Amino acid sequence: MTQRNLFLLPGDGIGQETMAEVRKIIDYMNAEQNAGFTTDEGLVGGSAYDAHGVAITDADMEKALAADAVLFGAVGGPKWDAVPYEVRPEAGLLRLRKDLELFANLRPAICYPALAAASSLKPELVEGLDILIVRELTGGVYFGEPKTITDLGNGQKRAIDTQVYDTYEIERIASVAFELARTRKNAVCSMEKRNVMKSGVLWNQVVTETHKAKYPDVKLEHMLADAGGMQLVRAPKQFDVIVTDNLFGDMLSDVAAMLTGSLGMLPSASLGAPDAKTGKRKAMYEPVHGSAPDIAGQGIANPIAMIASFAMCLRYSFNMVKEADNLEKAIANVLDKGIRTGDIMAEGATRVGTTQMGDAILAEF
Amino acid sequence: MTQRNLFLLPGDGIGQETMAEVRKIIDYMNAEQNAGFTTDEGLVGGSAYDAHGVAITDADMEKALAADAVLFGAVGGPKWDAVPYEVRPEAGLLRLRKDLELFANLRPAICYPALAAASSLKPELVEGLDILIVRELTGGVYFGEPKTITDLGNGQKRAIDTQVYDTYEIERIASVAFELARTRKNAVCSMEKRNVMKSGVLWNQVVTETHKAKYPDVKLEHMLADAGGMQLVRAPKQFDVIVTDNLFGDMLSDVAAMLTGSLGMLPSASLGAPDAKTGKRKAMYEPVHGSAPDIAGQGIANPIAMIASFAMCLRYSFNMVKEADNLEKAIANVLDKGIRTGDIMAEGATRVGTTQMGDAILAEF
Ligand SMILES: CC(C)[C@H](C(=O)O)[C@@H](O)C(=O)O
Ligand SMILES: CC(C)[C@H](C(=O)O)[C@@H](O)C(=O)O
Repeated sequence: MTQRNLFLLPGDGIGQETMAEVRKIIDYMNAEQNAGFTTDEGLVGGSAYDAHGVAITDADMEKALAADAVLFGAVGGPKWDAVPYEVRPEAGLLRLRKDLELFANLRPAICYPALAAASSLKPELVEGLDILIVRELTGGVYFGEPKTITDLGNGQKRAIDTQVYDTYEIERIASVAFELARTRKNAVCSMEKRNVMKSGVLWNQVVTETHKAKYPDVKLEHMLADAGGMQLVRAPKQFDVIVTDNLFGDMLSDVAAMLTGSLGMLPSASLGAPDAKTGKRKAMYEPVHGSAPDIAGQGIANPIAMIASFAMCLRYSFNMVKEADNLEKAIANVLDKGIRTGDIMAEGATRVGTTQMGDAILAEF
Repeated sequence: MTQRNLFLLPGDGIGQETMAEVRKIIDYMNAEQNAGFTTDEGLVGGSAYDAHGVAITDADMEKALAADAVLFGAVGGPKWDAVPYEVRPEAGLLRLRKDLELFANLRPAICYPALAAASSLKPELVEGLDILIVRELTGGVYFGEPKTITDLGNGQKRAIDTQVYDTYEIERIASVAFELARTRKNAVCSMEKRNVMKSGVLWNQVVTETHKAKYPDVKLEHMLADAGGMQLVRAPKQFDVIVTDNLFGDMLSDVAAMLTGSLGMLPSASLGAPDAKTGKRKAMYEPVHGSAPDIAGQGIANPIAMIASFAMCLRYSFNMVKEADNLEKAIANVLDKGIRTGDIMAEGATRVGTTQMGDAILAEF
C-alpha cells in the first residue's frame, strides 16, 4: 500500500479546531479508502514559542522537510504581540516557506455560488468568479537583506527592507503560472510596478521572455500592480491566472479573497520545485484566513478553508484528483443545503459549529 | 492685490484637455473675483521627453520650486513604453515629488451620491463614503538606494529595490494624518506589514509614539496592510483617515478610489513641510487617474478630477475655503443634474464632452 506522510502544524487560535476536522477526513480515508496516510504533528507560531521559545523547532523543521506534505493551520494572536521580532509567530511560517523552498503560492479566489450574496461586490460581478493568484513566496522584500533597524543617534532610527529578485526566481514562478493557466482558461496577467521598481522591470522582462520561449500559446497581459488592485475590484472576472511577487501577492490575494464573499473558506497551496529524481514537490497547504484569536476555542470557527486546503493537498501532492474533486463537491453541497457556520450565516440557513460542519462535509464526501 | 503663482504641468494624454478646463476657472476667478492668479506652463513626462529628452527639464523644475502651487495633469502612454528607465514619463512626476519634498500625499476617496450606483460595491457599503488616505510620498521603496539591476553572468540578473524609512519621515507624515483627522472624524488607522518588514516595525513604533506625545485625543488603530486592503473592500466606511507608506499607499489608494465609483473624479494634493519663515507649504495637485492615452485628444475625457484637484489647491495652498467649497459644490450639482461624461454615463443622463462638462461646472460655480 502507498504510504503518504503528512505533517500537521495546527498552530495557534482556530488552527487547532479546524485541523481536527481534517483529521476526521484523513481517518475516514484511511479506514474506508485505504488511503495510507500517516500523520505526525508539531508546533508552530505562538504555541511553539510558549513551549520552546522559538516559532518552530529544528526538530519540527526536519519533520516538515521529510514529510510528503505539510498541513498548516494558522499562527499569531495578541498574546504574542510583544515577543521579539525573530521569534514572533509569523517567523515560523516564513521559515517553513523558506527552508522548504516553497516558492509557488497558489491562492484560488473562487466564489461559492451559495455565497455570492455575501460578497460586498454586486453579485453579477462575482458570480462564478474563479481566479488563481500565483504568488512568489520565497523572495522579494520578505527575505532580502539588509533587513535592519539602525539607531542613528539624535533619537533617529533607520529601517531598511530589501526587495531582491534574480532571473531564475521569476522564471520558475512564471512557468508555474503558465503551466496552470493551460489547465484553466489559458490566460496569465503579470503584475508589478515596473514604472517605479527595478525588480518590476526585471520581473516584466523575464515573464515576457519565459512566455515567448516556452508558453507562446498562453495569453499574456501585463498590468501595474496598483491598476491590478483597481481592476480586481472593478471587474474581477476579467482574470484567469495572476502572477505576482511576494508582497504584491500578499496584498492582491487578500483583496481577491475578500471579493468572493468566501473569505474564511479559501485554501492555498505552497509548492516547491519538483525533485530531480522523484519528481515530487515539497508542499504546504494552509487556509488564507488567520488564527482568529477572537473566536478561538469556542467551537464556532469555519473549518472549510482548512478542509479545502486538504483537498488541494490531495490534488497537488498525491494526484488524488477524484478524491479532491469529491471533497470540494462535498463542501459545495453542504453550503447548498444551507448549513453554515456563523461567519457565513444567512437568513434561513442552519447555523452549526466547527465539528458539525466537519461532520456534514464528511457525510457528503 | 494678492499675487498667486500657479505652475501648470498638463503632461501627456488627457492632461492637456482636462487642464484646459481648469484654466477657464482660473480666468473666471481672476476676472470676476480678483483672485490674482498668474500662471506659467511647462512640460512633463512624455511631452518633455519628446521636446528635450528628459522627463522634466531643470528650468521647469525651477519654476515648480518657485511657484505657490503646481497643477499636474498626468504622464505616460504606450508611445514612451520603450524609453530608458531614467527618462521615462513617471521619472518627471517622481522628481517633482522628491525635489519639492512633497512628503504628504492626500487622497480623498469620496463617493459622490449621484454615483453610488456606479461602484462595484453594493450601494449601502459606499453611500456617503468619505475616507482620506494620507500616503507618504518621498520615501520608501520609491527612492531608496540601492535600486539596481546587475548582470550576474550565466544569463542571470539581480534586481534590487530598497525600502528605507527614518524616524523623522514617519513622524511628519503621522502628524499630518493626526492633524487632518482632527478636522474630520478624529480617527486614524495606520497600515504597515510589521509582521514581515522592519520598516513596518519602525512605522508602527513611531506612529504610536507620535500619537502618545502629541495627539492622544485622536483615535488610533493599527492594521496590517493586507488586512487593510481586505477591510477596504469589506466595509470601507469604518475608516476616516488612513496613514501608510509610499508603496502601500499607492496600492491602497487605488483600491479605495475604485470603490467609490468615482474613479476618474478623484483629486489629490501633495504637500511639503511648512516653510520655517513664511509657513507656506510647497504643493502639487493632481488627479488620481492617469493619462488615459486610449481616449486622449477626443474631447471626451472627464475633467472633474482635475477641477477637484484645483479645489484642493484653493483650500490647501491659498486657504480660499469658501471658493473651494463652492467649486466642490458646483461639481456635485452638475452630477446631480445628470450631466455626465462617457466614463460616468448612466441611464437617463445627458452625455457631454470635456469642455461642456467644464462649462457646466463653471456655470454652477
Ligand atoms: C502571516 C503573514 C506573515 C503572511 C504573509 O504576509 O505572507 C500572511 O499575510 C499570508 O498572506 O500568508
Ligand atoms: C505614475 C506612478 C509613478 C504613480 C506612483 O506609483 O506613485 C501613480 O501610480 C500614483 O499613484 O501617483
